[in-house]
Amino acid sequence: MRVDIITVLPELIRSPFEGSMMRRAIDKGFVEVHFHNLRDYSTNKQKSVDDYQFGGGAGMVMNIQPIDDCITKLKSEREYDEIIYMTPDGETLNQKMANSMSMLGNLIILCGHYKGVDQRVRDLHITKEISIGDYVLSGGELGAVILCDALFRLIPGVLSNETSALTDSFQDNLLSPPIYTRPAEYKGMKIPDILLSGNFPEIEKWREQKAYEHTKERRPDLLEE
Amino acid sequence: MRVDIITVLPELIRSPFEGSMMRRAIDKGFVEVHFHNLRDYSTNKQKSVDDYQFGGGAGMVMNIQPIDDCITKLKSEREYDEIIYMTPDGETLNQKMANSMSMLGNLIILCGHYKGVDQRVRDLHITKEISIGDYVLSGGELGAVILCDALFRLIPGVLSNETSALTDSFQDNLLSPPIYTRPAEYKGMKIPDILLSGNFPEIEKWREQKAYEHTKERRPDLLEE
Repeated sequence: MRVDIITVLPELIRSPFEGSMMRRAIDKGFVEVHFHNLRDYSTNKQKSVDDYQFGGGAGMVMNIQPIDDCITKLKSEREYDEIIYMTPDGETLNQKMANSMSMLGNLIILCGHYKGVDQRVRDLHITKEISIGDYVLSGGELGAVILCDALFRLIPGVLSNETSALTDSFQDNLLSPPIYTRPAEYKGMKIPDILLSGNFPEIEKWREQKAYEHTKERRPDLLEE
Repeated sequence: MRVDIITVLPELIRSPFEGSMMRRAIDKGFVEVHFHNLRDYSTNKQKSVDDYQFGGGAGMVMNIQPIDDCITKLKSEREYDEIIYMTPDGETLNQKMANSMSMLGNLIILCGHYKGVDQRVRDLHITKEISIGDYVLSGGELGAVILCDALFRLIPGVLSNETSALTDSFQDNLLSPPIYTRPAEYKGMKIPDILLSGNFPEIEKWREQKAYEHTKERRPDLLEE
């Protein structure tokens, strides 16, 4: 997978790509991530990338010209499967979307900042609008990081143990059962006896039951799907 | 607001706090962010913070001891309004939650990594479990960043123009109307005439109508609340 991230603030999201799973995914060659600073594409003297909105109102809007030039240049270099705009009014990301998107090849992710981008950018170039949740952030940069993390870890080979992703929350519409590690007793708090029984079929049954109960209590909506 | 972030990977999430709105919120003294590296609290020789899970299964589980020691130390130093654990099975973050949480004082945010934390940590210390959405990430660190961004920008004085946050998506259960900025015509694409009319009451009406239509088309669920 190749991801081209277009942003006014590339430095804001460098560190999440420089450690942990995403770093390994890049180092092992499973993914390539390229940052494109919109200011480099601004044709005006001030290198500005935003302006007041037509019709008045608070908040700056990102100009169409630098974004159009950047996306047009990238599209001239290779084919893209999706040109994504991170925005709170996009389709809400979920694990099912992440699963299917993890099989794509080349992606552009456009990060809105300030009040958002000129609507004509969306009409002209964007093929998919994604929201990471029903809340507002100071920019799409963090959304882009979340999307990359959710996708990269699903690419076969990225996680050291593939079954680790398969048993995650949401993969079977169930939340995870409780998990425990050493010590078996800590300040008087003991782990459930079943986990020390060595009876793995029974442990599996217990976990399924706990996962179901936990989901029913916290997220009954997941069971209805 | 003071936020203490407990993590095995503090370096992973440094950059989002070093630029843009969060940097300004910190520099202006509206918020304090402290990172606590769990490894500093591990009492074993290897400074390990995770172990295999009881009962078998893929993925490592974070030990209770370093987390308990870190949270206990922090609680001995000040009162906390919430001790939050970022987890996909937590309560799903939305703007309403962000609004009310933005008024809190001291928060601890515990970031799960690997398969998650020993259940006893949750039973013992956690007062609120939050998910940023129905997808799985490689750790709670990115969730912690999202939560901070969503909260910080709502603290009065952090955004340069307070009305900017008040007119965001979700604040009135409506998505935003389309926005435009200069030039009024770009490669034959013109902005809607109404925005050039100077008739601000009519512009406001047009925006409300567009926001309603947009919400009805994309997120009818928001209109039912």
